[in-house]
This record gives sequence, C-alpha cells and structure tokens, in this order.
Amino acid sequence: MSKLLDNVCSELQRLPGIGRRTALRLAMHMLKMDTEVVDSLSESIARFRHDIRHCQSCNNLSDEALCPICSDTRRDRSVVCVVEQVADLMSIENTGQYHGMYHVLGGVISPMQGIGPSDLKIDLLCDKLLTGEIREVIVAISTSVEGETTLFYLQNRLKAFPDVKVTTIARGIGFGDELEYVDELTITHALLNRREI
Amino acid sequence: MSKLLDNVCSELQRLPGIGRRTALRLAMHMLKMDTEVVDSLSESIARFRHDIRHCQSCNNLSDEALCPICSDTRRDRSVVCVVEQVADLMSIENTGQYHGMYHVLGGVISPMQGIGPSDLKIDLLCDKLLTGEIREVIVAISTSVEGETTLFYLQNRLKAFPDVKVTTIARGIGFGDELEYVDELTITHALLNRREI
Repeated sequence: MSKLLDNVCSELQRLPGIGRRTALRLAMHMLKMDTEVVDSLSESIARFRHDIRHCQSCNNLSDEALCPICSDTRRDRSVVCVVEQVADLMSIENTGQYHGMYHVLGGVISPMQGIGPSDLKIDLLCDKLLTGEIREVIVAISTSVEGETTLFYLQNRLKAFPDVKVTTIARGIGFGDELEYVDELTITHALLNRREI
Repeated sequence: MSKLLDNVCSELQRLPGIGRRTALRLAMHMLKMDTEVVDSLSESIARFRHDIRHCQSCNNLSDEALCPICSDTRRDRSVVCVVEQVADLMSIENTGQYHGMYHVLGGVISPMQGIGPSDLKIDLLCDKLLTGEIREVIVAISTSVEGETTLFYLQNRLKAFPDVKVTTIARGIGFGDELEYVDELTITHALLNRREI
C-alpha cells in the first residue's frame, strides 16, 4: 500500500467516528476533488487549530479577543445563558429566539474524569456578575449526574449575588417525541410542571 | 459563529458522508488534539493529494512510478487480477491469499455517467498482455449492469490474446450470509454452480 495513502488514512483515523474504511473512502474521494479544494481543506484545518481563540468574556470560540456575540451591542446584556460547550451555544443560537449573552463553562464537574469546578470557567462568570449588569442567569446544562452536580455547585456560587435571578430551561416532552418512548423521569417532570392552556 | 470554525466546517462538509453536525464534531475534536497532531493531519492530506501517483504498470495508487506490488519480484507475473478500483485491490490483498499481479481499471463502463472504454485503463492492460508473460486474467469486477457490460467488452478485447485464459471470480452465497435474505439471482447462480463435496 502507498505510504502517502497509508499516512493520510492513519491521520484521519485519529478523528472520532472515522475507522479504516471511512478513512480510505475519504482519501479516495480527495483524489476526485480538485487539488485547490483539498489544499483549502488542509489549510483551513491547520489555520483553525492554530488561530482559534476563546472569547475573553464568555469562553465561546472566536477569531478575535471578543466573540461576535459579546461584541454585538444590540444583544441584551442583562441575561446570561450558561452552557456546557460551544455546540450547545450554537444550538440555542440556531433557534433565533434568544437575544441575551452566553457563558460557555467548557464542560461539567466530573470527579470520575478529574474535572473539578476550577477546570470550568466559573470564576469568569462570577467576575462578570460583579459588574451588576446581569439580572438573570439561565442555566442550560444537561440533566446528567454531572450536569446536576454542576447546577448544584453553580447555585451555591451564585448565592453570592442575591439580586441575580437563577433559572434553568424547562424540562418536558420534546415536540415530536412519542410519549410511549419517553423515560419515566421526564414524564413525571412533565406532569408535575403541567401548565394551564 | 467564528469564521475559522465556519471555514473548517464548510471544507469538511465537502467530504462524503460528512454533514454540518459531523463537521462541527470533528472540528471540536481537533481543538482537543495536540497542535502537532492536527498539523500532521493537515499536511498528510495536502501531501497525499499532491504527491500520489498512479502506477505506470497497473494503475494502482503509488508513491513511485511502480507500485509496491508491481515492483515486488516475488509475485507471480503470469496472473493478473482486473479490478474496478484501488479499494477492491486492497480487499483482495487483505485476504493474503492472492500472489499474482493486479490491474486497476479505474471504474466500469457506464454510458449513463458518460464513462466509455477509453476512460478506463483497458489499453494499458492490453499492452501488458502483448509481452506474452501473462497466462491468466481474472476479472473481479462487480455484477452490476455496468460491471457486466465492462466484462463483456473486456472479453471481446481479450479475444485478441487466445493464449490468455480469462476467468471471473466465483459468485455464490457469502460465508455468514443467511439464505433467507440472499437475492434470487445469487441463489440461482449458486445452485447452478453447485459443487460435489
């Protein structure tokens, strides 16, 4: 087997969800693509890894010191939505329904994986709250054991700011979910938090 | 969204089977990888696309003018296995049971996709047969309509070499296949070509 092909396959296999067969298929496809297109793919990967930064204010991925959201003056600076990771921020942004600010923790507290509160951007969040500009913190982190631990820790930390309202996003049955397949905890929660129509 | 992130995602999406979500997941994973590893991935892609060549003799992918198989003097030069693409060659090589040579056509005749015999490396194969060294041509191409057309065309071309035996690989029920789910054509073929045990 060609060394060049073997190399590119081995390197591609370092990516999640890409095994030997997929790597080979991707490499073969690259041969059908224009050289310039493959060059541009290769360059964009290197440039992304080297030049990407974390926003100083919210820890979102950014090209500049401040991310586009933090530098957007039209957004509501009185609300901060706390998320685990950048992908979650993007999911919320894609709804087009939220116009406040974000704060990316960079994970959740997980003693199993050796991730403690100091590994997350919690101090940065508290610093922002010190300005007194923020009136509500919406915690939008997962309902896993680690997520709940993080929520509990955050609640305690945020007690230092009694004027700040702390909320979590609603849990319930998703649109399009079939009740038959929804887990008991979610159904119990959805029943308890039922609302009048 | 960060331009760097947006760029890398758009470029990754040019690859087959990679949509927006997967591209984003791959990009996020790259942030967790060492810079050197990502650099080496990026370089191997560019180097592969620029430096890979096709073997002058068999059209296999190669770093040199001749591929490792064609330059291996221990292989049996009297047998040539004709395959559609490099991936097929690799599948046969992986069995470790075939010690002859290969010839990669680079596709099959497909009028629908505008691929005619002249787009495939058939002349190169005939040139090799002119040396008189080859005694058997094993055709190992798919049984699709295009594959059968190509086989028919090859058979005609190879009539110019009456001393060369032309064979095709056996069709039948695969090991591990359940008869219940095998198509009728394959079963019919497997019945007609039954062998005494």
